[in-house]
Amino acid sequence: MEYYFSKMISCSFDEAIIRVTDVLKSEGFGIISEIRMNEKLKEKLDVDFKKYTILGACSPSYAYKALQVEDKIGTMLPCNIVVQELSENHIEVAAVNPIASMMAIQNPALIEIAKDVTDKLQLVISRL
Amino acid sequence: MEYYFSKMISCSFDEAIIRVTDVLKSEGFGIISEIRMNEKLKEKLDVDFKKYTILGACSPSYAYKALQVEDKIGTMLPCNIVVQELSENHIEVAAVNPIASMMAIQNPALIEIAKDVTDKLQLVISRL
Repeated sequence: MEYYFSKMISCSFDEAIIRVTDVLKSEGFGIISEIRMNEKLKEKLDVDFKKYTILGACSPSYAYKALQVEDKIGTMLPCNIVVQELSENHIEVAAVNPIASMMAIQNPALIEIAKDVTDKLQLVISRL
Repeated sequence: MEYYFSKMISCSFDEAIIRVTDVLKSEGFGIISEIRMNEKLKEKLDVDFKKYTILGACSPSYAYKALQVEDKIGTMLPCNIVVQELSENHIEVAAVNPIASMMAIQNPALIEIAKDVTDKLQLVISRL
Protein backbone atom coordinates (compact mmCIF):
# COMPACT_ATOMS: atom_id res chain seq x y z
CA MET A 1 0.00 0.00 0.00
CA GLU A 2 1.39 3.41 -0.93
CA TYR A 3 1.72 5.77 2.02
CA TYR A 4 0.76 8.82 -0.04
CA PHE A 5 -1.34 10.00 -3.00
CA SER A 6 0.37 12.38 -5.37
CA LYS A 7 -0.06 14.43 -8.48
CA MET A 8 2.11 16.66 -10.64
CA ILE A 9 0.69 20.09 -11.42
CA SER A 10 1.98 22.80 -13.72
CA CYS A 11 2.06 26.17 -12.02
CA SER A 12 4.30 28.21 -9.76
CA PHE A 13 5.06 26.98 -6.25
CA ASP A 14 3.05 29.79 -4.66
CA GLU A 15 0.08 29.13 -6.94
CA ALA A 16 0.23 25.45 -5.98
CA ILE A 17 0.00 26.31 -2.27
CA ILE A 18 -3.08 28.46 -2.97
CA ARG A 19 -4.68 25.81 -5.18
CA VAL A 20 -4.11 23.01 -2.64
CA THR A 21 -5.42 25.18 0.19
CA ASP A 22 -8.55 26.07 -1.80
CA VAL A 23 -9.36 22.48 -2.76
CA LEU A 24 -8.74 21.27 0.81
CA LYS A 25 -11.09 23.97 2.07
CA SER A 26 -13.82 22.95 -0.35
CA GLU A 27 -13.60 19.40 1.05
CA GLY A 28 -13.83 20.58 4.66
CA PHE A 29 -10.15 20.74 5.61
CA GLY A 30 -8.49 23.80 7.11
CA ILE A 31 -4.72 24.32 7.20
CA ILE A 32 -3.61 24.32 10.84
CA SER A 33 0.15 24.19 10.34
CA GLU A 34 2.54 25.20 7.58
CA ILE A 35 6.20 24.22 7.64
CA ARG A 36 8.50 25.67 5.01
CA MET A 37 11.04 22.88 5.29
CA ASN A 38 13.61 24.33 2.88
CA GLU A 39 13.67 27.57 4.88
CA LYS A 40 14.10 25.61 8.14
CA LEU A 41 16.95 23.58 6.65
CA LYS A 42 18.64 26.75 5.39
CA GLU A 43 18.29 28.41 8.78
CA LYS A 44 19.41 25.42 10.87
CA LEU A 45 21.92 23.59 8.64
CA ASP A 46 22.76 26.22 6.00
CA VAL A 47 21.89 23.80 3.19
CA ASP A 48 19.98 24.51 0.01
CA PHE A 49 16.94 22.32 -0.57
CA LYS A 50 14.18 22.59 -3.16
CA LYS A 51 11.05 24.52 -2.22
CA TYR A 52 9.25 22.11 0.09
CA THR A 53 6.26 23.02 2.25
CA ILE A 54 4.33 20.71 4.56
CA LEU A 55 0.71 21.79 4.99
CA GLY A 56 -1.10 20.31 7.98
CA ALA A 57 -4.72 19.74 6.97
CA CYS A 58 -7.45 19.12 9.50
CA SER A 59 -11.16 18.46 9.26
CA PRO A 60 -12.38 19.50 12.72
CA SER A 61 -15.31 17.07 12.72
CA TYR A 62 -13.21 14.06 11.71
CA ALA A 63 -10.44 15.06 14.13
CA TYR A 64 -12.96 15.30 16.97
CA LYS A 65 -14.42 11.88 16.15
CA ALA A 66 -10.94 10.33 15.94
CA LEU A 67 -9.78 11.87 19.23
CA GLN A 68 -12.85 10.49 20.99
CA VAL A 69 -12.13 6.90 19.95
CA GLU A 70 -8.30 7.03 20.12
CA ASP A 71 -6.87 9.70 22.39
CA LYS A 72 -3.25 9.35 21.22
CA ILE A 73 -4.19 9.83 17.56
CA GLY A 74 -2.86 13.38 17.84
CA THR A 75 0.57 11.80 17.32
CA MET A 76 -0.57 11.38 13.70
CA LEU A 77 -2.51 14.61 13.20
CA PRO A 78 -2.93 16.76 11.20
CA CYS A 79 -2.94 15.03 7.80
CA ASN A 80 0.04 16.35 5.91
CA ILE A 81 0.15 17.51 2.32
CA VAL A 82 3.62 18.04 0.86
CA VAL A 83 4.06 20.61 -1.89
CA GLN A 84 7.49 20.44 -3.52
CA GLU A 85 9.05 22.10 -6.56
CA LEU A 86 10.80 19.50 -8.72
CA SER A 87 11.68 22.18 -11.29
CA GLU A 88 10.20 25.48 -12.39
CA ASN A 89 6.42 25.08 -12.83
CA HIS A 90 6.68 21.35 -12.06
CA ILE A 91 5.11 20.95 -8.66
CA GLU A 92 4.43 17.65 -6.96
CA VAL A 93 1.66 17.51 -4.37
CA ALA A 94 1.49 14.46 -2.09
CA ALA A 95 -1.09 13.79 0.61
CA VAL A 96 -0.51 11.23 3.36
CA ASN A 97 -2.59 8.05 3.15
CA PRO A 98 -4.02 7.82 6.67
CA ILE A 99 -4.90 4.15 6.23
CA ALA A 100 -1.21 3.39 5.64
CA SER A 101 0.22 5.59 8.39
CA MET A 102 -2.29 4.22 10.90
CA MET A 103 -1.60 0.55 10.03
CA ALA A 104 -0.12 -0.11 13.46
CA ILE A 105 -3.28 1.01 15.27
CA GLN A 106 -5.69 -1.79 16.13
CA ASN A 107 -8.91 0.17 16.54
CA PRO A 108 -11.84 -0.62 14.20
CA ALA A 109 -13.68 2.63 15.05
CA LEU A 110 -10.60 4.65 14.13
CA ILE A 111 -10.05 2.70 10.92
CA GLU A 112 -13.59 3.61 9.77
CA ILE A 113 -12.83 7.30 10.28
CA ALA A 114 -9.42 6.94 8.61
CA LYS A 115 -11.10 5.39 5.55
CA ASP A 116 -13.44 8.37 5.19
CA VAL A 117 -10.53 10.83 5.53
CA THR A 118 -8.46 8.81 3.06
CA ASP A 119 -11.29 9.02 0.50
CA LYS A 120 -11.49 12.79 1.02
CA LEU A 121 -7.74 13.27 0.60
CA GLN A 122 -7.69 11.13 -2.55
CA LEU A 123 -10.48 13.31 -3.90
CA VAL A 124 -8.51 16.47 -3.06
CA ILE A 125 -5.48 15.19 -4.99
CA SER A 126 -7.61 14.14 -7.98
CA ARG A 127 -9.24 17.58 -8.09
CA LEU A 128 -5.95 19.50 -8.32
CA MET B 1 4.01 -2.68 17.99
CA GLU B 2 2.69 0.37 19.84
CA TYR B 3 2.46 3.49 17.67
CA TYR B 4 3.49 5.80 20.52
CA PHE B 5 5.62 6.02 23.67
CA SER B 6 3.97 7.68 26.63
CA LYS B 7 4.43 8.72 30.21
CA MET B 8 2.31 10.32 32.92
CA ILE B 9 3.84 13.34 34.62
CA SER B 10 2.62 15.32 37.63
CA CYS B 11 2.66 19.05 36.95
CA SER B 12 0.48 21.71 35.38
CA PHE B 13 -0.29 21.55 31.67
CA ASP B 14 1.80 24.64 30.93
CA GLU B 15 4.75 23.27 32.91
CA ALA B 16 4.48 20.02 30.96
CA ILE B 17 4.76 21.89 27.65
CA ILE B 18 7.90 23.67 28.91
CA ARG B 19 9.41 20.44 30.25
CA VAL B 20 8.77 18.51 27.04
CA THR B 21 10.15 21.38 24.93
CA ASP B 22 13.31 21.56 27.07
CA VAL B 23 14.00 17.81 26.98
CA LEU B 24 13.36 17.69 23.22
CA LYS B 25 15.79 20.58 22.75
CA SER B 26 18.50 18.82 24.77
CA GLU B 27 18.16 15.83 22.42
CA GLY B 28 18.45 17.97 19.29
CA PHE B 29 14.77 18.52 18.43
CA GLY B 30 13.20 21.92 17.87
CA ILE B 31 9.45 22.54 17.96
CA ILE B 32 8.37 23.62 14.47
CA SER B 33 4.60 23.46 14.94
CA GLU B 34 2.22 23.71 17.88
CA ILE B 35 -1.46 22.91 17.56
CA ARG B 36 -3.74 23.61 20.50
CA MET B 37 -6.34 21.09 19.46
CA ASN B 38 -8.88 21.85 22.19
CA GLU B 39 -8.84 25.54 21.18
CA LYS B 40 -9.31 24.60 17.50
CA LEU B 41 -12.23 22.31 18.37
CA LYS B 42 -13.82 25.04 20.49
CA GLU B 43 -13.42 27.58 17.69
CA LYS B 44 -14.62 25.36 14.85
CA LEU B 45 -17.19 23.04 16.48
CA ASP B 46 -17.96 24.83 19.76
CA VAL B 47 -17.19 21.68 21.76
CA ASP B 48 -15.27 21.40 25.02
CA PHE B 49 -12.29 19.05 24.92
CA LYS B 50 -9.54 18.49 27.48
CA LYS B 51 -6.34 20.51 27.11
CA TYR B 52 -4.60 18.82 24.20
CA THR B 53 -1.58 20.21 22.38
CA ILE B 54 0.30 18.61 19.50
CA LEU B 55 3.94 19.65 19.39
CA GLY B 56 5.72 19.04 16.09
CA ALA B 57 9.32 18.09 16.87
CA CYS B 58 12.04 18.15 14.26
CA SER B 59 15.72 17.34 14.29
CA PRO B 60 16.99 19.28 11.26
CA SER B 61 19.86 16.86 10.57
CA TYR B 62 17.65 13.75 10.69
CA ALA B 63 14.92 15.49 8.66
CA TYR B 64 17.47 16.44 6.00
CA LYS B 65 18.82 12.88 5.80
CA ALA B 66 15.29 11.45 5.58
CA LEU B 67 14.21 13.90 2.86
CA GLN B 68 17.25 12.98 0.77
CA VAL B 69 16.41 9.26 0.75
CA GLU B 70 12.58 9.55 0.64
CA ASP B 71 11.26 12.80 -0.77
CA LYS B 72 7.61 12.24 0.26
CA ILE B 73 8.54 11.63 3.91
CA GLY B 74 7.32 15.14 4.67
CA THR B 75 3.84 13.59 4.71
CA MET B 76 4.95 12.12 8.07
CA LEU B 77 6.98 15.01 9.46
CA PRO B 78 7.46 16.49 11.97
CA CYS B 79 7.40 13.86 14.74
CA ASN B 80 4.45 14.67 16.96
CA ILE B 81 4.38 14.77 20.72
CA VAL B 82 0.92 14.97 22.28
CA VAL B 83 0.53 16.66 25.66
CA GLN B 84 -2.91 16.14 27.18
CA GLU B 85 -4.43 16.90 30.57
CA LEU B 86 -6.28 13.85 31.92
CA SER B 87 -7.09 15.72 35.15
CA GLU B 88 -5.50 18.54 37.12
CA ASN B 89 -1.74 17.89 37.40
CA HIS B 90 -2.11 14.55 35.62
CA ILE B 91 -0.54 15.09 32.25
CA GLU B 92 0.06 12.40 29.68
CA VAL B 93 2.82 12.92 27.14
CA ALA B 94 2.92 10.64 24.08
CA ALA B 95 5.49 10.69 21.28
CA VAL B 96 4.84 9.04 17.94
CA ASN B 97 6.83 5.87 17.23
CA PRO B 98 8.28 6.61 13.77
CA ILE B 99 9.03 2.93 13.15
CA ALA B 100 5.32 2.16 13.52
CA SER B 101 3.97 5.09 11.51
CA MET B 102 6.46 4.42 8.71
CA MET B 103 5.67 0.67 8.50
CA ALA B 104 4.17 1.05 5.05
CA ILE B 105 7.37 2.57 3.60
CA GLN B 106 9.70 0.06 1.97
CA ASN B 107 12.99 1.94 2.11
CA PRO B 108 15.86 0.44 4.12
CA ALA B 109 17.81 3.72 4.23
CA LEU B 110 14.78 5.50 5.69
CA ILE B 111 14.16 2.72 8.23
CA GLU B 112 17.72 3.16 9.58
CA ILE B 113 17.07 6.87 10.14
CA ALA B 114 13.64 6.16 11.65
CA LYS B 115 15.26 3.74 14.12
CA ASP B 116 17.68 6.43 15.32
CA VAL B 117 14.86 8.97 15.72
CA THR B 118 12.72 6.39 17.51
CA ASP B 119 15.54 5.78 20.01
CA LYS B 120 15.86 9.53 20.58
CA LEU B 121 12.12 9.99 21.14
CA GLN B 122 11.99 7.05 23.55
CA LEU B 123 14.84 8.66 25.45
CA VAL B 124 12.97 11.98 25.54
CA ILE B 125 9.89 10.30 27.05
CA SER B 126 11.98 8.38 29.60
CA ARG B 127 13.71 11.61 30.69
CA LEU B 128 10.48 13.49 31.47
